[in-house]
Amino acid sequence: MGAESDFIDALRARATHPSARGLSDDAALFAGHVITHDMLVEGVHYLSSDPPADVAWKLLAVNLSDLAAKGAAPSAALLGYTLGAPAWDMRFAEGLHAALAHFGVTLIGGDTVRTTMGAPRSLGMTLIGRAGPRTPDRAGARPGDCIYVTSTLGDAGLGLKALRAGIDAPALIIAYRRPTPQCTAGVALAPHVSAMMDVSDGLLIDSIRLAATSGVRISIALDALPLSAAARAFAGDDLAARMSAATAGDDYQLLFSMAEKPPPLPCPVTCIGSVAAGAGLTLAYDGRPVALPEHLGWEH
Amino acid sequence: MGAESDFIDALRARATHPSARGLSDDAALFAGHVITHDMLVEGVHYLSSDPPADVAWKLLAVNLSDLAAKGAAPSAALLGYTLGAPAWDMRFAEGLHAALAHFGVTLIGGDTVRTTMGAPRSLGMTLIGRAGPRTPDRAGARPGDCIYVTSTLGDAGLGLKALRAGIDAPALIIAYRRPTPQCTAGVALAPHVSAMMDVSDGLLIDSIRLAATSGVRISIALDALPLSAAARAFAGDDLAARMSAATAGDDYQLLFSMAEKPPPLPCPVTCIGSVAAGAGLTLAYDGRPVALPEHLGWEH
Repeated sequence: MGAESDFIDALRARATHPSARGLSDDAALFAGHVITHDMLVEGVHYLSSDPPADVAWKLLAVNLSDLAAKGAAPSAALLGYTLGAPAWDMRFAEGLHAALAHFGVTLIGGDTVRTTMGAPRSLGMTLIGRAGPRTPDRAGARPGDCIYVTSTLGDAGLGLKALRAGIDAPALIIAYRRPTPQCTAGVALAPHVSAMMDVSDGLLIDSIRLAATSGVRISIALDALPLSAAARAFAGDDLAARMSAATAGDDYQLLFSMAEKPPPLPCPVTCIGSVAAGAGLTLAYDGRPVALPEHLGWEH
Repeated sequence: MGAESDFIDALRARATHPSARGLSDDAALFAGHVITHDMLVEGVHYLSSDPPADVAWKLLAVNLSDLAAKGAAPSAALLGYTLGAPAWDMRFAEGLHAALAHFGVTLIGGDTVRTTMGAPRSLGMTLIGRAGPRTPDRAGARPGDCIYVTSTLGDAGLGLKALRAGIDAPALIIAYRRPTPQCTAGVALAPHVSAMMDVSDGLLIDSIRLAATSGVRISIALDALPLSAAARAFAGDDLAARMSAATAGDDYQLLFSMAEKPPPLPCPVTCIGSVAAGAGLTLAYDGRPVALPEHLGWEH
């Protein structure tokens, strides 16, 4: 929305160092390392009823996803933590250790603070990874490239919907609470893609950002979006379901462009569109143009 | 307090990487860089009525102070920012740019998030600096060392008191709102000190931490504490005033130990005590022992 864009524009205006990449990226390249900082706010980015170990997993996963999009291998994290109920805190700490161990990340520092009574928790993580031989950004998509996405889209959004409605949909709820960042795929793809980012706010809004930074037009065939069996069972497979999957956010899949076929990956990958000269995003379904929806994704 | 210590202990138990230094330090040493992450919460670490540009200054200053204690030269920052009233946000952005320019720090990334209605802002900053030839920690104080502190103590605590009481005390209020981190002194001192940290939570609590990590006893002469003229004018100069200065926190001065005389510094430096074999902290005033107060400092 306007206020956030204005604030980021105000910061960007003077963030002219090459490492900052104009603050148009999810991560900075600094001294051979890729560094990212993402926050989760209770009631905004996760539900108060989400298990603390899952919140810890998600805090790490969203940062890992930023590094994956840069083809960087994660190594160290700093935690910014708002204390709350001690039992919740301890379960968060246990969950965080398990998640760090799972992904081979070392906790090297951070800060813990108290907040005022009843205030939502605000969690931050800075994640540092070794840059690979090539660090892709959002700027390189070229006319003629295909647009690809890893795994499936829309599961996390449906998981949130299920939680809010009190519906038991385990696979979707796990996708919402414990997203799987595409770390290995990101490292494998980085040398080959023309542009890459992760889909955190929703396919449409993120595709528009990719198109804008690259100075190209992106066309997406909604029919081609990879939906999971669980998502189809929950929400069907019509245009409305596909538009929801394309705007829900919280997917943490990789969105990338390249002219050749992608290298072998440890996850499914699907061509969902193409790049052409021009600007903006166009959508099609069943061979016909589809207007962009008013709500393109999670705009914070 | 207990809950925070338990949480940090739970994190520390498995933070065994050398970079983490057992999480007993304010900053991590990683790949030739010193990295710190500090948070400020509205209503806890600053007043809602503090000017946004001052809050931006303080967020940078508290992180710079951590780097100063490591003798590291600051270079790049990532910002974790909770959006609120747009006018406040814009003034924060302007103030942050001015502060970054003042200290020669580049903003390279971060995250901005919305929070729930009426929640206090929670601000985080990750600051990265180049490590110097030697990175001191809290572990090296040796019997026979003197304990030194830079500049004056207690001004910020009195500034907060003045703000809360509606008393006009400009020098003290500036010390609270716009602390001056001892960046240059930290770099100059790092090769020479046996141990060093910054005084963020209060001289007594921080001295106890230094003594515990070094495995020594520290004795401090409260008479020797450097108080500013503004502090003396505001709160007098008796034992109670000195005890307040030693427990108030928010000073961001450097506390360090060394056997020799400190090198020339761009700020005053005062010997306030000594290191001996043993454990814990002892206080004296006017040549007589003084019991430790119940409240040793800002324990979050």
